[in-house]
Amino acid sequence: MDLHEALYTTRAMRRVKPDPIPLDVQARIMDAAVRAPSGGNQQNWRFLFVDDQGIKDQLAPLYADAASKLWDTFYSGQVAAAHADPTNPESISFLKVQKSANWLGEHFAEVPLFMFPFAQHDPTGSSIYPAVWSAMLAARAEGIGSCLTVLLSFFYPDEVNKILGVPTEDGWAMQGCVSMGYPTGTWGIAPRKPAHLVTHRNSWGSPAGFDVDEPLWTPNP
Amino acid sequence: MDLHEALYTTRAMRRVKPDPIPLDVQARIMDAAVRAPSGGNQQNWRFLFVDDQGIKDQLAPLYADAASKLWDTFYSGQVAAAHADPTNPESISFLKVQKSANWLGEHFAEVPLFMFPFAQHDPTGSSIYPAVWSAMLAARAEGIGSCLTVLLSFFYPDEVNKILGVPTEDGWAMQGCVSMGYPTGTWGIAPRKPAHLVTHRNSWGSPAGFDVDEPLWTPNP
Repeated sequence: MDLHEALYTTRAMRRVKPDPIPLDVQARIMDAAVRAPSGGNQQNWRFLFVDDQGIKDQLAPLYADAASKLWDTFYSGQVAAAHADPTNPESISFLKVQKSANWLGEHFAEVPLFMFPFAQHDPTGSSIYPAVWSAMLAARAEGIGSCLTVLLSFFYPDEVNKILGVPTEDGWAMQGCVSMGYPTGTWGIAPRKPAHLVTHRNSWGSPAGFDVDEPLWTPNP
Repeated sequence: MDLHEALYTTRAMRRVKPDPIPLDVQARIMDAAVRAPSGGNQQNWRFLFVDDQGIKDQLAPLYADAASKLWDTFYSGQVAAAHADPTNPESISFLKVQKSANWLGEHFAEVPLFMFPFAQHDPTGSSIYPAVWSAMLAARAEGIGSCLTVLLSFFYPDEVNKILGVPTEDGWAMQGCVSMGYPTGTWGIAPRKPAHLVTHRNSWGSPAGFDVDEPLWTPNP
């Protein structure tokens, strides 16, 4: 797969089929992931795959509960604003994300595979994400949709660490959860705020020095 | 560029030439970066490019100082261990990283371009890193080497925010600093701990279910 096709079309893909992901595919995803750089090349990381139905059944109610907590706390203002003005483009976009996240809440135990990344003693909290995103891009090349969520690590870290047997006493900390599966929908370029509107040059507020009015990569027709 | 070539060969590349990076190349890098997913698709991000010599000259001594602080604090044990046993493979690898980071400390002001990512109100602290890593992969496709460092945001956030004019009162927080430039060295597959040694299945300590003894992708001869 072309790099730019992967970068432009790997969007959060929560709705997936229950079909299992073969082990050799998982091996290719992880081998690509561990090539990513990490702070000081420490590679203080572990990746825990979950495909056992019993464990997914234990995690599912925690995820569903965390999702509703999210709407009631962090995003409560946006939920209210979106429902007050549901035809506004921002509201439409937000309600789509909410619907998709709620789908995962209702179908968590049917998702074939989850990957939980863990970092040890990383005070920056950032070193593992290139590897996580590489895994998601490598999954895309295998036709696998994925979504990084921090709901479980945010609301229920103790419960999830206990279920997965994580030695937190050694400094291992869950950095999120990536759902993986063959998508029910299609790939596409996600609309985003244009690059020049979120880029400054040399000091905050200064123009980027370039304009990007249309995506600079498009799929071959 | 092939996705796997990018994933396997985009390693931390600190040693770069002073040649400037054209604006259209920077636009392509950023347009690819903003396609990445973010939590709740919030896109609460800003990217600040620094190519002004005066600003780089202000940042350079802070970076050099932060690098020496790093060796004296966080990595002091590893520095001592590496110098005590310099022929050990782990020591060799660590001393290489230290030498490369020190190169950046000594040549910071000669690096043509830096990209500072900022997130607003992201309690998870993770939402921006897929976009940052996408920028680094897109840079790789342009023949540009990059390195994500959190030294400045870790040791001197206030000083750097002031130099860059960041409105921290609005909740904007620096998430690192990416150096960019045309490399003096060559691209290659970095040696890493094998994927199966850092992967568990269903519970911590259980085997991955696959073995990866050699990289599963290699460049065409």
